[in-house]
Order: sequence, then C-alpha cells, then structure tokens
Amino acid sequence: MTAGAGADAGVVVGVDIGGTKVLAGVVDAGGRVTSTARRTTPGRRVVASQVEDALVEAILESAGGRHLAGVGVAAAGFVDSAGERVMFAPHLPWQGEPLRDLLEDRLGCPVLLDNDANCAARAEAHHGAARGAASALMITMGTGIGGAVLLDGHVLRGANGMAGEFGHMQVVPGGRSCECGRSGCWEQYSSGNALVRDARALMADQPSVLTDMSDGHPDRVTGPMVTTAAEAGDLVARAAFASVGDWLGVGTANLVAALDPEVVVIGGVSAAGDRLLDPARTSLQRTLVGVGHRAVPRLVAAELGPEAGMVGAALLVGGDGTRTAAP
Amino acid sequence: MTAGAGADAGVVVGVDIGGTKVLAGVVDAGGRVTSTARRTTPGRRVVASQVEDALVEAILESAGGRHLAGVGVAAAGFVDSAGERVMFAPHLPWQGEPLRDLLEDRLGCPVLLDNDANCAARAEAHHGAARGAASALMITMGTGIGGAVLLDGHVLRGANGMAGEFGHMQVVPGGRSCECGRSGCWEQYSSGNALVRDARALMADQPSVLTDMSDGHPDRVTGPMVTTAAEAGDLVARAAFASVGDWLGVGTANLVAALDPEVVVIGGVSAAGDRLLDPARTSLQRTLVGVGHRAVPRLVAAELGPEAGMVGAALLVGGDGTRTAAP
Repeated sequence: MTAGAGADAGVVVGVDIGGTKVLAGVVDAGGRVTSTARRTTPGRRVVASQVEDALVEAILESAGGRHLAGVGVAAAGFVDSAGERVMFAPHLPWQGEPLRDLLEDRLGCPVLLDNDANCAARAEAHHGAARGAASALMITMGTGIGGAVLLDGHVLRGANGMAGEFGHMQVVPGGRSCECGRSGCWEQYSSGNALVRDARALMADQPSVLTDMSDGHPDRVTGPMVTTAAEAGDLVARAAFASVGDWLGVGTANLVAALDPEVVVIGGVSAAGDRLLDPARTSLQRTLVGVGHRAVPRLVAAELGPEAGMVGAALLVGGDGTRTAAP
Repeated sequence: MTAGAGADAGVVVGVDIGGTKVLAGVVDAGGRVTSTARRTTPGRRVVASQVEDALVEAILESAGGRHLAGVGVAAAGFVDSAGERVMFAPHLPWQGEPLRDLLEDRLGCPVLLDNDANCAARAEAHHGAARGAASALMITMGTGIGGAVLLDGHVLRGANGMAGEFGHMQVVPGGRSCECGRSGCWEQYSSGNALVRDARALMADQPSVLTDMSDGHPDRVTGPMVTTAAEAGDLVARAAFASVGDWLGVGTANLVAALDPEVVVIGGVSAAGDRLLDPARTSLQRTLVGVGHRAVPRLVAAELGPEAGMVGAALLVGGDGTRTAAP
C-alpha cells in the first residue's frame, strides 16, 4: 500500500488534474515528490482526447524516461465506484469517460483512478495531519466544500463512489440557492465563494478597504482580496471570515455527531489558517452533542498543501506496481 | 462472529435494557430467539446494583439452567469505546458504571456491551433489512432519533463510541429547542415526540378527531393516538406524519451525501410504515445531491422489530463463547 518503488521496478507517478492545471510527479515510498511536470488543462470545450494528451505528456515528462511501475490519477470530478471512469466533471470534457483503460493502453502500466478530494485525504492519512488516526474527516475548502471519510487510513468511497459530498448537506431550510439546483447547502455558507459573497454583502453597509481594492465594484472582490484585507485589520473582511468559520464549525459538528472521528483535517485554508479554524473550533464546541461527556476531536489544518492530490493518487498504486485494493 | 453455540458450549444470551423493561433471550447462530425472559427496569432512582439484579435474573431465567457461553448487553445509554462502561443513560442510574466487569463477576462468563441502537443495527445487518449490504445506515425513530453506520456489517463505533448520534445534527439554525441544550436538532422535527408536537400545534387551528380523543386537551395527545387518527383519515394527524416523514428524508439526504450507503434502514416505524417512509422517499429524492448521476439508496423499514436489540447484543459474542472483535 506504499507508493514508490526501487530502480528495477520503475517509478510511481501521481497526477492531479483540476480545472486549470495538470500536475504530475514521481512520488517515493515515503510520500516525497522527487520530480514534477505541469500542463495547462485544455478546458471543457475541447475533445476528451486532448485532455488525455496533456495527462500523458505530464506523466512522461515527470518520469524522465524511467520505467513506469504504475500511475495514480486524482481527478476533479465524480469517479465511479470501480475506479474506472470519470462520470462527470464540472471543468473537464468527460462524461463516463473510461479514463483508466484509455491511460493503461497509452502508458502500458497499471493506472488507478480516484477523485481529487479522496486522494488528498489519503495523502493526509498516510503522510499528513491524519497520520495514525483510526478515524478522521477531511473537509476541503475551495470554491465549494469537498471531503472524505477516513477509516484506518482508507477512504470510504460509498456505494456510488460519492461519499464525502459534505458541501451539499443542507444546513438552512430554504436557504441560499446552490449551483447544484437545491438550496441551503453548507458550501453556500462556508467556502471560498461564501467568503466573497459575505464580504460583498457586508461592504454595502460598512466602510471597508475592499471598496478601494475593488475600485468600488463589489463584484470584483476576490478571495485573496478578502484575505489581504483581513490581515490588514479590515472589519468587513474579518466579519466574513468569522461567519464562514462559524459555519465551518456548525457543519463539522453535524458530521462529528454522525461519525465521531478522532481528528478533523481542514484542507484548502493555508492562507487563512486560524482565521477560519478559531471560529470553527468555537462553534464546533457550541454545536456538538455530548460536549462534557466526550472528547471533542481536534480541528487542524491539512499539512501537505497543493501536492496532496498528487501524493494521494500515487498511494493508489501498490509498492510493486500492481493494483492494490483501493487504499 | 455468529451468535449461538451447541449444547456442549452452552447458550448465548442477548439482553436489551431500556428505560422501562429488560428483555433477555437465548439467541441461536441463525439469529433466532429460542426463549426469553422479562423484567421491569427498576428506574433511575434506585441504586445501580438493583438494575444489575434485574439483568442477572432475566439472563438466568432465559437460559433456564443451561451453561452460559457468553452474554451480550444492549444498553439504552452511552457506552465507552472499549465496551466496558455505561457512561451515562437518561433512564438508568449508571454514570461510568463498569457494567461489563460487574456482570462477568456475577455470571462467570464473557460479557460484551454496546448501546442499543448499535445492537439493533448489527442485528439488521446480519439477519434483517441491511443483510448483504456493503454499507448501510440505520436510523431509529423513537422518542428521538438514534442510529448507526454499518460498513460490511460492522457498526462504526467512533473515537468515543458515540458515532451515530444522528438525532442531534442541526437541521434548522436557531430552531426548536432540544433536550440536549442546543436547538434545531433533527429529532425535534422527525421523531415520535415531533409527531405529537406537530399534531398538537395543528389541532389548535383545524378540526381533528384528536380533539375528541384527548377530551379537548392537546397535551394528552399521544403518538399511538396520532397513528390511530391518521389511519382513520384525520387530516391533522396525516399532516403531522407528512411533516415528520418529510424531515426524515431531509436529514437522511444529508447523511447519504456524506456516506453514500447502499441502503437506509428505518427502525421504530412498524406502526406507521409507509405513512412516514413515502414522504421521506420523496424528500430524499428532492434534497439529495447528484440525483440523476447516482443510485439513490433504498429507504426501507427495519425487519426485526422489538427483538432487534437483544439479537444484536447476542451477535457481540463469538460462536465459541469468547470475546470477538466488536462485530
């Protein structure tokens, strides 16, 4: 179940394909990335084979001519429970694409496939903040909320391969409308998008450096702007972080009530850190059932950063290059 | 991991202790109950040893003089993750009681301990509605909502032994206050108590047979009355069932988004059946993320009825009478 292999057996490559970039790297048995290669993701208006071309190029460049023992792929999309197909992906031209078999034919080595949130969680379980935990939750903040349930270091994939869709748990009946077509989803209150939305709404009523930063156009406010403004002490930006952090704790409390994990790892918050995690810890303590009769799980930031998906993809490949049972 | 044993090895007894009664029974390897004994639960104002007396009496009576290979206990309370102690129980005089060791001393055989919702879920996994499912949720409707997560037939116990506290997931921010001290908990909208509360509120504004049934005192309305009224076509009672069922589906959708189980088993609804499950299926379909791209899990009634806790307790005991890893 460890990635990497000796010189004879060839190298294990992990590759992470998101909406904007393809990142491939050779990952050794200790989870260290020894060489990488990047491509720009061709986008969703191209034919699927162009995306596969970009994947194959990045993989081969990162391997630098060495024999491929196996390749793990982390895809920003829904992967079927067998790990063979990308069923759909919001930023990629795949709909039921049999990506695993296509890449095996082109690369001549075993290819394993999982979604990016599961891969990042697997990497944190083996080499990061969830190391050694019998049970953990990974909650990844981005445009929305992704996540995974980790049990003894294994990712729970679910009957459809769709476990971990935490962002679409309803937290407010009849609440903010969501891109998924429903309303009141958690990620409408706690995510990068929610942060920007909250800041825009607050700056309409209160003075804020965000008004200058956006040239008076609230619709030009971005996540990094809110982070910069909060660091500068701006009250609107800080209030937006406090709200997103508070909701992070509320949703986490629901998951902890259901699953009682040892640790909760929050990904995607490197720039914000404790500005989100402190209010989240407070609201977790306030909202969780049985506080006083139980240990409240640690709420910690992920440790591996943007390489987590790539490292976790490589972990799909057994040390001998053969397919492992999904780790 | 199977309960029961041959004549030489002795019998396996499962015992379920709730707020009102103690039910013990000999359970064979096929999950069949071959003899039972009951006692009234002494209540929470007695000394703990009186409750233990009632347990021991019921266990010995059900065994009828046969050798005890092992005893499994399902307790209506929080059991520590080691399965040794009842940490607290709303209707019993236990606070950190080392029940397992106390009973082993008195009975002279291995004793295994888990909470009642976990035991009922284990029974459904081995002999009931979750049989054969790689992953399942058990949601038990009673005064509140209890539950369990089942993976390959094993109950997920959690870091504190508190996984499955579904009833205290917050579904309405600032909503109805809950006995747990917080507000907006799921069980305030979907449970036996919620059914009665909804019916009482609705009968204030609409004619209902419940007014006669309760002699004009809404506070005398009970759950069985609402069930009877709904069967008779009463619109208030039917609206209360529709609301509780709708909320059952909403909360279930949140759990399914997180865990993606193959099947969801609803316990405690034998009298109500499809009057709750039909609206729950509708709202699950409406609220669940990815409908159209996934299989929606089956939502089915539990099969084992009031003996589930006893049968699941017996399953804690290995076929040879020794302790098993918690199944």
